[in-house]
Amino acid sequence: MSLVLYELLGKDDLRFSPFAWRTRLALAHKGLVPDKIVPCLFTDKTKLAFSGQDKVPVLKDGDTVVSDSWKIATYLEDRYPDRPSLFGGAVGRGVAKAINYYCDGQLHPAMARLILGDVFANVDPVDREYFRKTREARFGAAIEAMHAEREKHVEAWKNVLLPVRLTVRDQAFLSGDAPAYPDYILFGTFMWARGTSPFALLAKDDPLYPWRERMLDLFGGLARRAKGHSV
Amino acid sequence: MSLVLYELLGKDDLRFSPFAWRTRLALAHKGLVPDKIVPCLFTDKTKLAFSGQDKVPVLKDGDTVVSDSWKIATYLEDRYPDRPSLFGGAVGRGVAKAINYYCDGQLHPAMARLILGDVFANVDPVDREYFRKTREARFGAAIEAMHAEREKHVEAWKNVLLPVRLTVRDQAFLSGDAPAYPDYILFGTFMWARGTSPFALLAKDDPLYPWRERMLDLFGGLARRAKGHSV
Repeated sequence: MSLVLYELLGKDDLRFSPFAWRTRLALAHKGLVPDKIVPCLFTDKTKLAFSGQDKVPVLKDGDTVVSDSWKIATYLEDRYPDRPSLFGGAVGRGVAKAINYYCDGQLHPAMARLILGDVFANVDPVDREYFRKTREARFGAAIEAMHAEREKHVEAWKNVLLPVRLTVRDQAFLSGDAPAYPDYILFGTFMWARGTSPFALLAKDDPLYPWRERMLDLFGGLARRAKGHSV
Repeated sequence: MSLVLYELLGKDDLRFSPFAWRTRLALAHKGLVPDKIVPCLFTDKTKLAFSGQDKVPVLKDGDTVVSDSWKIATYLEDRYPDRPSLFGGAVGRGVAKAINYYCDGQLHPAMARLILGDVFANVDPVDREYFRKTREARFGAAIEAMHAEREKHVEAWKNVLLPVRLTVRDQAFLSGDAPAYPDYILFGTFMWARGTSPFALLAKDDPLYPWRERMLDLFGGLARRAKGHSV
């Protein structure tokens, strides 16, 4: 059985897909090490044709192909039930879905308003045109204009973090005393920024700051070792 | 052993505290029926002096006194471990905390912008002065002005619901296939409105609408039987 992870490739071998980071940490949590990690450009998805769609991450586990980070997490949980649990049961899995939608639907857009110019600067040159076209359509603004106005959006970013900030003020991880998949979802978002942007997203007195440090330390510093900015 | 719940009392015997509803449903989930429910006005907290604080809900379980809906839920979970679980384990409990902060810190303020005038109209006449003073200080606006401008805040309310809306589009309950404490937290917020306001907070095609119906049906229609508006 071989385990292969397909993930996004940026400029200079950067790996900043927030969704791929969710999967990387989910694999580590299960004690699984990919035999191979295959980097893919935004515009070179021919490598993913076997998966029947064109988005990373894709996990190939033997003959099984799973795409979409959420589906990969639930696949891993169900396929490897005897290894450490990603969700800790049905309620944890249920509520993790809400965290997934919170990160995708509220956190990512708010963070994008702050770092999209930096992400653009770090996609592979080959992908720049594709990235500009798709992102400018999504946000209804030019990347440079968003970048120039980012300070205006800092307050909204801070506000959207409120529920997770207060949670990790009370407890070490979003999932309680120990990390689990809800933490990996949220942390993936921060790895998107770490791989691309020098913009300081968290004040040092924000309870999310030491939480992020704890996440960077997990699994022998798996995420900390990745190329990126330490802000 | 006797179980006594202290909760908020509104006009005409209305019971619309979102926090008390969390506790009511948590008790029902555990199969516990309070021997007595003691209603308290906002301005008559002498009844709560024994709890060392002045907020409802308070649960008195034999000689044990617990105040604060979150603490009551974790108390019930730990005190009655053999009854149906409210959190389904450590991860569920961890992430439920984030749902609690999401509801208290983002959902309640957004809903208040729409219904506070209606809540005001439904507090006991004795409490009106207290309610006006505390709420107008909290929101920095007169209750009547907020009420007159509520249509302006409908969009923000819809947006803040995004993560939970998409979750219950995918699955029957926030907690998965079956309801658990995260659902009771969110549902308490809607019971605050049901007890006080005819304002339609959810469109019929919003996935939260049938979720709310499912919640109203739980435990033999416990919440549906409470006096209130069916919108």
